[in-house]
Amino acid sequence: MSGPIQFTCPLPLAVKDRIVLGHGSGGRLSAELLRDVFLPFFHSPILNRLDDQAVFEFRGARLAFTTDSFVVKPLFFRGGDIGSLAVYGTVNDLAMGGASPLYLSAGFILEEGLEIETLRRVAESMGRAADDIPVEIVTGDTKVVEKGSGDGVFINTTGIGLVPEGVRLSPALVRPGDLVLLSGPIGDHGIAILAEREGIQFSTDLASDSAPLHGLVAAMLAVSLDVRAMRDPTRGGLSSALNEIASRAGVGITIEESAIPVREEVRGACEMLGLDPLYVANEGKLVAFVAPHAAQSVLAAMRRHPQGHDATLIGAVTDTHPELVLLRTPFGTTRIVDMLPGDQLPRIC
Amino acid sequence: MSGPIQFTCPLPLAVKDRIVLGHGSGGRLSAELLRDVFLPFFHSPILNRLDDQAVFEFRGARLAFTTDSFVVKPLFFRGGDIGSLAVYGTVNDLAMGGASPLYLSAGFILEEGLEIETLRRVAESMGRAADDIPVEIVTGDTKVVEKGSGDGVFINTTGIGLVPEGVRLSPALVRPGDLVLLSGPIGDHGIAILAEREGIQFSTDLASDSAPLHGLVAAMLAVSLDVRAMRDPTRGGLSSALNEIASRAGVGITIEESAIPVREEVRGACEMLGLDPLYVANEGKLVAFVAPHAAQSVLAAMRRHPQGHDATLIGAVTDTHPELVLLRTPFGTTRIVDMLPGDQLPRIC
Repeated sequence: MSGPIQFTCPLPLAVKDRIVLGHGSGGRLSAELLRDVFLPFFHSPILNRLDDQAVFEFRGARLAFTTDSFVVKPLFFRGGDIGSLAVYGTVNDLAMGGASPLYLSAGFILEEGLEIETLRRVAESMGRAADDIPVEIVTGDTKVVEKGSGDGVFINTTGIGLVPEGVRLSPALVRPGDLVLLSGPIGDHGIAILAEREGIQFSTDLASDSAPLHGLVAAMLAVSLDVRAMRDPTRGGLSSALNEIASRAGVGITIEESAIPVREEVRGACEMLGLDPLYVANEGKLVAFVAPHAAQSVLAAMRRHPQGHDATLIGAVTDTHPELVLLRTPFGTTRIVDMLPGDQLPRIC
Repeated sequence: MSGPIQFTCPLPLAVKDRIVLGHGSGGRLSAELLRDVFLPFFHSPILNRLDDQAVFEFRGARLAFTTDSFVVKPLFFRGGDIGSLAVYGTVNDLAMGGASPLYLSAGFILEEGLEIETLRRVAESMGRAADDIPVEIVTGDTKVVEKGSGDGVFINTTGIGLVPEGVRLSPALVRPGDLVLLSGPIGDHGIAILAEREGIQFSTDLASDSAPLHGLVAAMLAVSLDVRAMRDPTRGGLSSALNEIASRAGVGITIEESAIPVREEVRGACEMLGLDPLYVANEGKLVAFVAPHAAQSVLAAMRRHPQGHDATLIGAVTDTHPELVLLRTPFGTTRIVDMLPGDQLPRIC
């Protein structure tokens, strides 16, 4: 390449034309890949909405449809494994659209040499997770790649759900004045995975928060249909979820740092490793945008549910700084919380 | 392990407890994995039917749901690429249940270091294939794994289709006397991939037969609803597809070797490489089981369609040798055509 040097960031040249781990982070690079590589060729008005799930009308009903691949490493971790995660992850993407899960598909890509006993444990965990929801795994597929061309087990689950009548959730509905509710402490999943991977010991039993959220969502919608939008802050963490909503709705969001619950072990691990809990993945939490008049009753309903008993009000939607997420610190200062620019922690889900 | 040696085949011990390439072949090992590892934990009556697609009732309609992961190597080959294959493959699985495609999901697992231009070519091909069907890719997901933990691009596509009223296709409906129709020459896809991979030259332009089959299926069902069952003989080839039907329906099948079209280049390559065309993968062919009174009109409809103009009657269903597929050779002898026991050719789709 000739001409003046134009780079303003320390990323190597290759990042511009090759896939890097950050493209799978759920942050800025993921969004760019979607915008530049996929959307121009997939001419779908539904896909262009960029919701966690596609919702389409069928015979007077609204069906939700969502897909997720799971490449988490290690396969088994404290609080879960790739099997239950693959079921909960897709059920949660349906739930974020307000949908009750109906059916799941399961696609496996196995690496030659994988112990069949390992696969059996994964399948058993998937089956148990599906029974608990309950949701039926009705169709599947298995491919095998040569040793070194995969990594043990990758699982794709794709789900179909039913959006109940009257329920309408979309970032497009979020407006200034709405309040932001968080269902519990953040960062547990990411730090639990990292601890497992790096052999970090904690004094207490920190585990992934991997859990299904459809029950919590149903409990919230039972007290008010004025929940405007929900997101489960998985890859990219809470900050990426909030930035997505702010950008989609064209609104500003202000959150209070002191109101965001973070476990001591998670805070300690993040400090030690130089991570920000706002960017660490969760697999059993949701953030909800609720009309102001309904926020207290929805928060109370969340606290009555096992998946939401530590729920808190963390902030509000505003029209003063559109498409920006601001964090107010306990010291009264304010900082911009951006989308995850690269990748904090790959292979998290 | 103690006790007398019980092995009757030359497979190494590890095959018993580790995943081998044959588990992804679509043949006997795939069936065993499904039976022993997945079905015991996925308590689904729909899955237990073992059709290529799950069919469930919704508001008086029947929806089909199917998933497939694509790991083909190389990504681009004469006659297609992983992108169009991922669209056609899932559309074809829907079509084998008689369903018209409605929506697709697309899940990508990318390997770090992949050229973004390569991914763009794949996405463009997927988009074009979807537009041609037409079917809408409404939801997606992208994960990235470290270099050496994947292989360029893996794609999962999952599809939802609508089964038209009056259409009912299932191996369970196949009965003695039904005739067996094949839509065209077999083995093109497998040999084209192998040629690409191994650098084999052909004197003519052998290309993969990768193509969507929903139009052909619609044309067949338009002339008769007495088509009982269909299969697209992909992994494991025609022999595995026929064996699956024989076993599911509890019937025998006799086919005429001389009636099965095989291109000269495919026959030549198979002889050179010691492969049997009956086991080589196809990606744009179908085999149909049709009530005897309807077979001629269905065959004529197939021949009028571009995807079926070389269609032939290849055999019949019988009650004389249940669950066995017999091949009558041009010399008047007969041999049993079994399911693919191991793996002839991995990473074919």
